[in-house]
Parts: sequence; C-alpha cells; structure tokens
Amino acid sequence: MSKYVYGIDVGGTSIKIGLFDMKSMEMINDFEVETPKYNHKETIFETIYQSITNNNMELNISLDDVLGIGIDVPCPVKKGFVIKCVNLDLNDTDLISSMKKYLPNHIELVAANDATIAAFGENASLNKPYDNAVLITLGTGVGGGVILDGVIVEGATGLGGEIGHIKVYDEEEKICGCGSKGCLEQICGTAGILNYTKTLLLDNISILNKDHLSVKAIFDAAKLGDDVALKTVHRVAKYIGIAASMLSIINEPDVFIIGGGVSKSGDFLLDLIQKYYKENARFTTGEIPFKLAVTGNQAGIIGSAMLVRSVIENK
Amino acid sequence: MSKYVYGIDVGGTSIKIGLFDMKSMEMINDFEVETPKYNHKETIFETIYQSITNNNMELNISLDDVLGIGIDVPCPVKKGFVIKCVNLDLNDTDLISSMKKYLPNHIELVAANDATIAAFGENASLNKPYDNAVLITLGTGVGGGVILDGVIVEGATGLGGEIGHIKVYDEEEKICGCGSKGCLEQICGTAGILNYTKTLLLDNISILNKDHLSVKAIFDAAKLGDDVALKTVHRVAKYIGIAASMLSIINEPDVFIIGGGVSKSGDFLLDLIQKYYKENARFTTGEIPFKLAVTGNQAGIIGSAMLVRSVIENK
Repeated sequence: MSKYVYGIDVGGTSIKIGLFDMKSMEMINDFEVETPKYNHKETIFETIYQSITNNNMELNISLDDVLGIGIDVPCPVKKGFVIKCVNLDLNDTDLISSMKKYLPNHIELVAANDATIAAFGENASLNKPYDNAVLITLGTGVGGGVILDGVIVEGATGLGGEIGHIKVYDEEEKICGCGSKGCLEQICGTAGILNYTKTLLLDNISILNKDHLSVKAIFDAAKLGDDVALKTVHRVAKYIGIAASMLSIINEPDVFIIGGGVSKSGDFLLDLIQKYYKENARFTTGEIPFKLAVTGNQAGIIGSAMLVRSVIENK
Repeated sequence: MSKYVYGIDVGGTSIKIGLFDMKSMEMINDFEVETPKYNHKETIFETIYQSITNNNMELNISLDDVLGIGIDVPCPVKKGFVIKCVNLDLNDTDLISSMKKYLPNHIELVAANDATIAAFGENASLNKPYDNAVLITLGTGVGGGVILDGVIVEGATGLGGEIGHIKVYDEEEKICGCGSKGCLEQICGTAGILNYTKTLLLDNISILNKDHLSVKAIFDAAKLGDDVALKTVHRVAKYIGIAASMLSIINEPDVFIIGGGVSKSGDFLLDLIQKYYKENARFTTGEIPFKLAVTGNQAGIIGSAMLVRSVIENK
C-alpha cells in the first residue's frame, strides 16, 4: 500500500498543493487554490484541509495513508510559530496546532518559512544532497535559506537566512525596505537591476530599449555582448559572489544553489558568480561548488514535502 | 561522590588544563604545560594523558570519576577531525580516537576549534545561556564562533565561524593572509588598528606617542577624548557593528558576545559597537543584545569542559 505526504506552499495570492509518494517522492498531482482574503488564522487551515480532503477523494486515497504534511508560509517562522507576518494575517500563530486540529494524530506536521523550505528542497533534490547548503534566489527580491547539518537555520525568531539583506555595498545612500542600506537586494533585486541599467543607458550606446526594459532583456543582451547589459550583469554577479563569500566565512556550506527567475540565464550567470566568488573568498573555501536550482516554482511544495518526509524518516 | 570533567585548551606554546566539578562546574584547579615541539599527533595526547593522571594523583581523584574531557585546538575541526592545521602538526588527525586510546571507555570525549569552543563557553557562562549566540574576539587577530540551537557551527570542513574574515570593507587594497581583502581582521586586528592610527598621526595632533603605540594606549586615549584615538576606535566599532549586522541577517543570534584583549575597554567599546550595529542592522534585528565576554584567557578550558558536560547531559 502506498503512503503519501503533502507539500503545501502558502503564498499571498494562492496556496499551491502537491501530493507525493512517500517512498519515491514522485509527485502524484499538484494544484492551486486561491488564498482566502481574511481571517487567515482560521481560513488558511480550513482551506488546506478541504483541499486535501477533496483531492484524496478524487484520487481515492485515504487520510490514513497520508503520513505527513509540510507547510511553508511567506514570513519568518520559528519552530512552527509565526510571531509577525507582513503578507498574511498570521501574527502570533502556531501553524502546527492550527493545522493539527483538522487532522488525525498520525499525520506528522512541519511548517517553516518559504525560502528556507525551498533551500531544503533544492538541496534534497540534488543527486547527492549535502549536509550544509545555501540557496540564493534572485527574483523581484533576493532571498534564500541556509541548511546546516541537514537542518534549516531559523535563528532566534525565524529571521535567519534572509540573504537579501546582507550588506554588500558600503557606499549605498538609499535606505532599503529593511531599514538598513547597501543590502544585496538593493543591487541584485529587479528594481536594483533596472535602475542601474537605466542610469547606464543615459550615457551609453546599447541594444537595450530603455522604454521596454526587463531583467530578462538585460541578461539576453549581455549574452549577445552588449556592453551596458554586461556591466549590469557583472555587477549582479559580483555582489552575489561577495555575499556568498561572507556566507562561506560564517557557515561554510558544502554547496551554493542559485535559484529564482534570474537564474534562468543559466551557466552564463553561474560562471560569473563563481568567478567573483573566487576573487572574494579566502583560499580555503574557494572551491565550494555553485549549482543551479532545479525545482523552479514548485520549490515550495517539493521542499515542504521533502522536509516532512525527512522528519518522519528520522523519527 | 563527586564527578569531574576536564577542559583542555591546546595552544601553539602551551596546553592549559582545568579540572571542573561536573555538577557545579566550579573549577577545582587549573595549570599549564608546554606544548611538545614535535610529532604532535602522538605527543599532544600523551602529554594530556600524563598531565591529567598526575593531577588526579595529586588531588586523589580516580579516573573512574572523570566523566568527560573536552579538547580544543587552534585549527579547523569537523566532528573531532582535523583536516589541516597550520599551527600544529595535526594534519589528518582524528582527535577523539587519538585521545581515546589512552583512556577508559566511560570517558566522553569532545574536540573542536578553540574559538568556537570559546563561543560555546562564553554563552554557557551567561546567567541565562541562549540557544543562538555569536562570539566575536578582538585580539591580535579577530576570531569568534557561532552557536545555533545550542550546537557549534563547524561548516563543511570546520571552517565555519571564522568571523575575522567577513568582508566588510570593499575599498581595501591589501590582500589579507586568508587570500581575500577587506576582511574584518584587516581593520580590527592589532596590526590594522596600529597602522590606521599611525597614518592619522602623520597629520593630526594627539596625546598618543607614535613610537610607543599600543592598542591599549589607543583605547585609553579615546576614553580621554583624544580625536585621533577616537577616530580609530569608532572605525573598529563601526566595522564590528557591520559584521554583526551580517551575522544577524544570516544566522539571527539571540546575543552577541564581545571578547579578546580589546574588549577589556569594556562598556565604552560595547556601546559604540552597539550604536554602529543598530545603524546597520535592519529594523527587526536591531535589538539583539551585546554582552562582554567573562571567561578571559580561561575561555578555552571553560568552554571545553562545558561542551563535554553538555554532551554527557544530553545523552
């Protein structure tokens, strides 16, 4: 008889749900439902329960055969508890007990921050997962997560692993949303990339069209050798490399994994990041490998499912 | 019947040894012996064994009542194993099995890097130890260690927690001994402090005597309001604060502990570090407390003894 785990990725607009075979971790099916608008402390857990109940009925799966549910949320989480959540109405919520009241006791539950769950899932998805891994995701913002000795680093209150706010640029004048300045995200997030490129376009010839600028267009132009685009891409790679060098000093991971939309530019970006990493790392940690993330926008459901499976297996 | 643990701090010139009551952690006695000159893979462990045997005889303590021995060494250690050691001839040495062969089986052994052991000991020495702590030591070099969920962060090969090599100063031109540049140690280590002050003294009036310059003299002059000394001390505090802000982003400790010789300047330095930390930390982590280290040059023996005791207690 097959056994199953669910991976649930709770976002601001939708809740993604994936059902996995516990043994092979093959995904049986996945779907998404709208995130409820209000009263999230109740409605999110009701919605998850209803969704998996309906899915089980359609697939003729008994809840008895579901061994675990992993849940991620877009806010800091410490041991399953949310102190403060900007994106959802989940302040002071124990995610585990909130979900547990809908479910039979045999179901293992884990809950963590979405970016750290993604880090866990990306590492677990490698051919040979490492004990110590760092995921850096490059998208609208810059995020990520840190895994040490196979465990997610949450920090004192769940704020650990917020890689986008590592200070990398001492000369920055603008204040970041986090209250500091010179953050990695200010340079390597979408706004940082576009603004820097626009400034370059004022004085330089380029194939880029300043009225239709996108991160993808910039990376594509860089691959074609456009000087302005190359300058931007090198700047992004440089500061990701510097941030990685700091992470290697503090936590010495076995691997860096680069994910998020920007990582779609593939080895072109990865090679540049690694070049700048080596320039900034000390001798002893210069050879830590860099890999591209593979789970894409399923990182949340895969990571959540893998995390709960690992908790079940280590019991 | 009392039970005991030993804490051993292996340095390049001496081995410090402390005997502690297992229950109260009161230090019964401590002493030091010269570090053997050669063949460390054998002689260090022989020396430790002989030293504790002699000490036990003098104090009329049976080896049966020694429950654990903690050992620190001045090089990276991963799970009790040294891959490479610059300071001692301990390359490719399993510290645990090298020590174990001299001892009865009931004695628990732990071994780790000296700075990370100190971090463990400093945190454990607080009135109320935290789960997550960072020690930053300011001496000839800048070192430290990271404790997460009560466990020392060793990283992939034992190079974790080497706080002195966090890159904090993008404009640095000189290469650091680690191969990178702009490292915290380049600014806040003794050489960095003295060199910067000497440069300031070329063009500025000061009560400092450039021919008899020391870190202590600089901090003392700063307390008296000397402008040159104050400029140096603010620079040190600023970059410690920036490094701490990075550590808070990545690992979010519950506490920062400042140790090493420079920390003897006390609250004067601590308050400045905290000021710069707050300026550079994001809103959510600005309130992490800073404390002064208390174990002084006994950090190694206290930390080693406390670490092995915690392993015994958690069994």
